[in-house]
Order: sequence, then C-alpha cells, then structure tokens
Amino acid sequence: MDTMRIVERQAQQSETRILLLVLDGLGDIPGDDGATPLSAARRPNLDRLAAEGCCGRFDPVGPGITPGSGPGHLGLFGSDPSEIEIGRGVLSAVGVDFPLQRGDVAARFNFCTLGASGAIADRRAGRPSTEENRRLVARLREIPPPKGCELFVETESEHRGVLVVRGVGLGARLADTDPQATGVAPLPVRALEVGSERTAGIVAGFVAAAHRVLAAEPRVNGLLLRGFDSLPTIPSLAERFRLRPVCIATYPMYRGLARLVGMEMPAAPPALVDYPAALAAQHTGHDLFFVHVKYTDKAGEDGDFTRKRAVVEEVDALLPALLAPGFDVVVVTADHSTPVGHKAHSWHPVPGLVWAPGRVFRDATREFSEQACLGGGLGRMPLRFLLAEALAAAGKLAKYGA
Amino acid sequence: MDTMRIVERQAQQSETRILLLVLDGLGDIPGDDGATPLSAARRPNLDRLAAEGCCGRFDPVGPGITPGSGPGHLGLFGSDPSEIEIGRGVLSAVGVDFPLQRGDVAARFNFCTLGASGAIADRRAGRPSTEENRRLVARLREIPPPKGCELFVETESEHRGVLVVRGVGLGARLADTDPQATGVAPLPVRALEVGSERTAGIVAGFVAAAHRVLAAEPRVNGLLLRGFDSLPTIPSLAERFRLRPVCIATYPMYRGLARLVGMEMPAAPPALVDYPAALAAQHTGHDLFFVHVKYTDKAGEDGDFTRKRAVVEEVDALLPALLAPGFDVVVVTADHSTPVGHKAHSWHPVPGLVWAPGRVFRDATREFSEQACLGGGLGRMPLRFLLAEALAAAGKLAKYGA
Repeated sequence: MDTMRIVERQAQQSETRILLLVLDGLGDIPGDDGATPLSAARRPNLDRLAAEGCCGRFDPVGPGITPGSGPGHLGLFGSDPSEIEIGRGVLSAVGVDFPLQRGDVAARFNFCTLGASGAIADRRAGRPSTEENRRLVARLREIPPPKGCELFVETESEHRGVLVVRGVGLGARLADTDPQATGVAPLPVRALEVGSERTAGIVAGFVAAAHRVLAAEPRVNGLLLRGFDSLPTIPSLAERFRLRPVCIATYPMYRGLARLVGMEMPAAPPALVDYPAALAAQHTGHDLFFVHVKYTDKAGEDGDFTRKRAVVEEVDALLPALLAPGFDVVVVTADHSTPVGHKAHSWHPVPGLVWAPGRVFRDATREFSEQACLGGGLGRMPLRFLLAEALAAAGKLAKYGA
Repeated sequence: MDTMRIVERQAQQSETRILLLVLDGLGDIPGDDGATPLSAARRPNLDRLAAEGCCGRFDPVGPGITPGSGPGHLGLFGSDPSEIEIGRGVLSAVGVDFPLQRGDVAARFNFCTLGASGAIADRRAGRPSTEENRRLVARLREIPPPKGCELFVETESEHRGVLVVRGVGLGARLADTDPQATGVAPLPVRALEVGSERTAGIVAGFVAAAHRVLAAEPRVNGLLLRGFDSLPTIPSLAERFRLRPVCIATYPMYRGLARLVGMEMPAAPPALVDYPAALAAQHTGHDLFFVHVKYTDKAGEDGDFTRKRAVVEEVDALLPALLAPGFDVVVVTADHSTPVGHKAHSWHPVPGLVWAPGRVFRDATREFSEQACLGGGLGRMPLRFLLAEALAAAGKLAKYGA
C-alpha cells in the first residue's frame, strides 16, 4: 500500500504551522564548472535553514519522468501523480484561473485557419496576438448556449483558448477535433461513450456557430478542440490530512492547482516583494502555507543562469520577512527541475529541505544546493513523502498501531 | 502505480543510442582490507565514465533478495521481477538457447538411477558427463511424439536436460515428478488443472517411453521432471519502450533472457576481444545495445578475487574500442552481486553508472567502485529505474502531463 494512505489515516490537527515554499523549476544539474544557479547564489538564509534542518532529493513522479506542472504539484501536495490524471482542458481552465466546478467539461482550443475547402491551412492561425484572441473570444461569447446549459469561452494566449460547458449530466469522454495535421478538415465532435453524447451535441452546435461567427475573419476562422476533461476527483488537503491550507501565488496555473486540492485563495500579491505581507495576512486560521515563486522556472526555461541565480538570491533576501510571522516547519523545494542547460522541465530529482528544530534529523548538510542535498538526511524519495515528513515534523501525524 | 508504467506511456523513439554494459555478478562487498575486485582494479576508462557521469546502487529485486539470473535481467530490462515469474523449465530452455515459442511447455529434467524396485537410487545418476548426456539425449529424441504435437529433448549439462512439448492447447500446470528424495519412486505425471490434463498424458507417455529406452543403461535409467512452465507474457522492449534493442552476449542463458524481451540476436562473438567488432556491426538500426560479460560472475562464483579483478581490467581496457562507434548514453552495471567471499549470487545492491554529458547530474563520484557509488547522485533504487534514467538521458521520454 502507498504509505501516504497511512499518513492520511494518522493525520491530526494541531496548532503548528508549515510553510511550503516552492521555487518552481529550482532543480538544476551542475555545468562544466560544477555550479548550478542555486549553488552559485548568495543564499545565507537558505543555508541557515539547510544547516539547522535536513535535506534530500525528491522525484516528483519517478526516476526518469519529466513532470508537467500538474504532476509536479500533485507530488508536492502529497499525491502520487501516476494515479491522478488531469486532462489538458482542465489544466488550461485552471491555468486561466477559471473557477471550474465539478461536472464541468473543459477543452483546450486552438484558433486555426481553414481554407476554402474547409481543410486546415494553419493549426495556429498564424499565431494571433493575445489581444486579437480576446477580441475573437468576446465574439464567441455571444453564441447563445442551448437550453439548460452554460458555455464559457476564455482566452489563454495567442491562438490558445478554453471552452467550458456547464450543465447537469454532462460527459467528458469526447474525441479531439484537432487532427494534429494540416490539409485535412477538423474532425467531427464525437462522443467516445453514450454518457457523453449530449455533450458532443452541445459542443458540435457551438463549433458550428463559432465557424459561422468567424466566417468573415481573414485568418482566424476555425476552432480545433482537444483534451476534453472534467475536474478529477482529488480529495482536498482538508479531507486527506485535516489541513487548513492557503495559497500565496501570482500565476493562475498554480493558483488553479492549489484550488484543485482545496486551498484558500486570497488575492494574488502583485510582486515578489509583496509576498511577506500577503503571507503574514493569512497567519491566523491556517496551518499549511503554500508559497509559489514562478520566476526560477522562467529563468530556467530561458536558459538564463544569471537570472535564475538572481531569483534565488532575491528569495533568499526575502526569507527573513517571509519567516517573520513564525512557522514551526519550513519546507523549501521545487515542483520539478528546469535546468538552464535544458531550457525545459527535466526528470532530475529536486533538492529540498525541511527545517523544524528538534524535530528533524539535523544532517551534515551546511548549505542548500543540489550537490549538498545529495548527501542529505532525507535521501532520495518520491516527492509526495516530503509532505509526510513535514506533517510528522509539525506533530500532525499520530502513531500508527499500538 | 509503478512509475515504469508512466515510463512506458511517455516513451518515444529517437536517434540516440544507449549502451547497456552488464558485467555479470560485478557487485562485491569489501574484504578486511577494504578492497573489492572492482575497487582494486586498474580501471581508468570506467573511472572516466563515473567522473563524467552519475553513479548509484541498484537493487535487482529488493533489499535482501538474492536474484537468480532471470530476475536480475528482468530488472535490467526495466521490469519488476517480483511481478514476473519465469519457471525453471523455461529458464533451462532459454539457457540452452532453445527457441521456445509461446504455448510450448518446458520442464527441466534430471537423469537419475532407478533401482530394481523402481525406487530412486541416485537423483543425479552419478553425475554423467555432458558428453554422455548428449548420447542419451540423442536416444530419447528417437521417441516418436503423439499425433499433433512435437517433443524436443535438449542437453543442459551433466545430469541436467530440458524437455519441451509443442502443440495446440497445451497447459503447463503439471506437478514435478521429482520427489527430491531417494528410496522412493518418481512421482506420477499429474495435471494440477483440467487444462493441463492432455499435456500430462503426453509427458507421461514420453517418460514411460524414455524409461523403456534407458532400461538397459547401467546407471542412467530414469528421468525426473520439474519446473513445468510456458513462456511468460513479457512484453518486448519494442512494445514497452519503443526501443530497437540488440544483444551482444556469448552465454546461451543471457541470449535467451534477451530474446524473452525481444532483442535482436546476432551470432555470439567468440571471445571478449571480439565484442567491439560485434557491437560496432550492430550500430545501425538499433538504439539499445545490451552487452553482457559473464566472466566477472564466474570468477565471483569461484571466489577468485584476482581473476575477478583481472576481468574488470580486461573490460576496462576494451572500453575505448567498445565506445568507438559512439553512444549518447552509457550504462555500466550488473544483474546481481556475486561477492568473492560468498562464492554465490548475493542480495547486495549492484554498483552502476550512467554517462551522458550534459544530461545527467554530474555528481562528485570520481571512480567506479562499490564504495564510490555509495555517494552517487542516483542514490539507491530498484534496478528497473536505471533503465528509466537511461531513457530519460537519451531523450526517449516525453514530458508527463501538462
């Protein structure tokens, strides 16, 4: 049995507070000079936490597997990402902070260019601007929904958008209409099971109406849909671990992922410098504080060593202010690695530390870096167990068995 | 879920090449002087790979479990050996390089000595020579098969051989006829389920005929069968990971195990010195190159420290030639440990390295030895995940989830 089931059973409320500080994409691999942005950064505050705490390395999904943001965060939140699938439509809806409800059916769409024959000439319609996307989405929002259901159309960016159908008894088992090729017509909207046939009818009606609305557009005159899905049934952190979690994050995607596990969601702080105040404002009434910093990942995706290092230094400088309200347990880690040399998410385990004086094994690690974490007392393990370590350190897990 | 399932789902073909160099039984435990054959060997080329790559230790099955060659190789090939059973009959057939087909029923047999009363006097018939075995097997091959099926009799060595029954609708659930005791008669051939009754009849007929054929032999006049089994349904590496694997090995057992997972099988190189040419000849059209060296294990089984060290040095000296065709990822490891102090397979994790510049975490390990691997960046994990690490390093795994 996955021992997180035991963690769920033994979870108990307590007055202790856990700060879960996530530097998105933090993990890196050393370059020829042996340095990573983290190891090269000036980070006295992170080093203090590492020296007083216990370090390790964590696989978001499993060895060799490069996680998207969804699986990475499921791991952070104590789930086995190989057991929970979040469809692209749901992730897109979550990513634009759309308040998806249980039973809603969401799909990602591309604006595309259709030729005179109806065949796809460009699957991305020449990548319209996001502003152009908003103008077109506004027009699609005027399409009246069929009786008894609601339609939502949302801009993602450029050629990308989200369609959400809301109603009673919908099904999400619909085939993609995007043939992932040009020179052929979009595929018909098609249900993959009986329970999704009514939804297929609703979506087909919308697509036909959208094509009429867009008919006069010079370039953006079609829609391709894929990744139909409904909210997965992810039990909340309150249900699983009796936590009262709150999210401090600016990016819609991560706010959405946190919402999927039932986190409270105060307004996004405008910038990193506003995080300490936003965090302090939630101090009462919560016991898990998920703080998400996106900028490490962006620098990693851009292959920008200097900027990634600078973000680490910026977070390190903010740490005293972040910690000022007082936490019993502090976890610092990432949802996945984004090595600057790869310019993309990677499969490498993420570094992590747990600080909880007198509660964790104080290992010999004296600094917070990928290299130092290699010898850390937490070893290498699946990321979901890091939450178990934090809960235990916070006194939130009762003894198992007599 | 075992995350190797995710690895299977995310597997994608690419032009990169992975060399999987297996030194059978390589792992050892340090003696009183702290040395192992590997750590004591002169191995500049292995050390270079370790220094540039990432090291770790791998449990073929799990902590404490001593694997046979079958489970050890299943781990190397990315399977969970605790999920797949290979019966002794199948392993024996595979071990003599018999081209076992799906549905064939195979059993290991012993030649034995039966007394006048029909009781077993010697379960191994005084250990006849392998040459004598071949002579007797030739006589058994003259026994005509019943209508609609084929019988194959193969020499293994000394008193050991393999019987294979081929036909439509056979069943392999047959009890051993070997009572594992002397002074009692062989057990009757008996089906353990209805679907194996016809097979039991065929085998019983063969055994009776064999006993008639051998009746005049002075010592070798009986057969004891055990380990009836059919080929397990092991999906090929092509099906699981979209690989195009090829095997360079001399010993039938390892060629057979590689065949079980669908590897291509060129002629065995006559000696170790011929491996580089044999490997180079397969460079086109393959992307996983399983190279198996048996001699480390043999030296371990003989408790011969000096010879085991010498084999490591021989392989190390061959490495530049082996690597000459060019590989993107190089893995060096073992299927199990065979410590010279044990003179047998053992449960100790095997050392391993993954070399893939810019793709793996370059840890602080500067040499390839059991001791150095202890601090390696891959940590300690089940052996099957080593293939996942290699596939990821080779760019053969797509991102999981959005």
